[in-house]
Amino acid sequence: MPSVEARLEELKISLPELAAPAANYVPYTVSNNQVFISGQLPKWNGELQFTGKVGREFSIDEAKQAARICGLNIIFHLKNACNGNLNRVKSCLKLNVYVNSSDNFSEQPQVANGVSDLMIEIFGDAGKHARAAVSVPSLPSNSVVEVDAIFEIN
Amino acid sequence: MPSVEARLEELKISLPELAAPAANYVPYTVSNNQVFISGQLPKWNGELQFTGKVGREFSIDEAKQAARICGLNIIFHLKNACNGNLNRVKSCLKLNVYVNSSDNFSEQPQVANGVSDLMIEIFGDAGKHARAAVSVPSLPSNSVVEVDAIFEIN
Amino acid sequence: MPSVEARLEELKISLPELAAPAANYVPYTVSNNQVFISGQLPKWNGELQFTGKVGREFSIDEAKQAARICGLNIIFHLKNACNGNLNRVKSCLKLNVYVNSSDNFSEQPQVANGVSDLMIEIFGDAGKHARAAVSVPSLPSNSVVEVDAIFEIN
Repeated sequence: MPSVEARLEELKISLPELAAPAANYVPYTVSNNQVFISGQLPKWNGELQFTGKVGREFSIDEAKQAARICGLNIIFHLKNACNGNLNRVKSCLKLNVYVNSSDNFSEQPQVANGVSDLMIEIFGDAGKHARAAVSVPSLPSNSVVEVDAIFEIN
Repeated sequence: MPSVEARLEELKISLPELAAPAANYVPYTVSNNQVFISGQLPKWNGELQFTGKVGREFSIDEAKQAARICGLNIIFHLKNACNGNLNRVKSCLKLNVYVNSSDNFSEQPQVANGVSDLMIEIFGDAGKHARAAVSVPSLPSNSVVEVDAIFEIN
Repeated sequence: MPSVEARLEELKISLPELAAPAANYVPYTVSNNQVFISGQLPKWNGELQFTGKVGREFSIDEAKQAARICGLNIIFHLKNACNGNLNRVKSCLKLNVYVNSSDNFSEQPQVANGVSDLMIEIFGDAGKHARAAVSVPSLPSNSVVEVDAIFEIN
């Protein structure tokens, strides 16, 4: 099996180079063989890319793209948790996807697939995860989506 | 102690026969002795039973019943995670209950008791769990409630 | 290093004397070396201190204070999970902060720092945690904030 880094290259997927927490917390913690990743926004090198609500400022496809970028930030931190070696990732255990929407939006699963698809593209079977996707009335910095995650690593 | 299956029979509780994820994720993952169950909607054999908001389309009692059905779907997946043997369930560690409501609703605990009561009916002391219950402005397919869960199994 | 109890005294931080669950669940569960704490409201000895929305009834600073009180209730339960010995706390793994706000509020991280700061004051490096902070349209008993937590203990 090719390494995860090789797959990232093959899929032409770039990770951000920077992803700092917005407040007094850390990007991840490790317990036993589990990594808890803080809620990530669709930032690229620290700059928020999507502010507003899906169904108002953004289409489902745009919000799905935002969810994918949250996932790239998750993998950025996960790589640090693995001391740079993403081949240590054994399983994506759980994703929680929070979608900033009006109260008549019901396509959260489509938005959440933006990050879910990414995990499976990159990690294959190890990327198959449990998930919860819900709407929220607002998010930090008016982001359109936020995603947190739990992984198992070797 | 009677088996969990015997208790299900005694309590005349039926599990659904089908509960497929709505998108690109899996119903559960396993890490060490923990099972992470995806957010479940009040579906019966895949058909959503309650669409709308508590306090508008549904009473608290109806939403509580919906939460119970989410729990039956959770147990459906948990049984698969246990290779069919629910006696392997050691503890319901955590439930997250997301209630689709207007912004003046404050009885989330009553709604969430629908799934909490179920866990304790079925598993006894092993069903006693930590919980968070919050409102959300909308849910996938306009469901009235969504519940995810973490269990410990033997 | 001084004991956690000594640090609580030094910082003049008092824990509540009472913090009972509002419904059919328990305040915490333990799995392996992890403690799952139920969603806590800003109650003092069981009495809710802040009902309403941040940005309407409460300023950011007031909501931040409410989040801190949620944290005191979390530590109350954590102490019980440790059989009274908070020196057994190895790591605050994750906080989920749910902020009751209107849909144009975007300062969830500032509110959540109320509980984050507390964890780091009390536990030092062991209090550094992963976090997710989101808004919700309403909470149990119309509370302004709710926080749940996962810890690792020895």
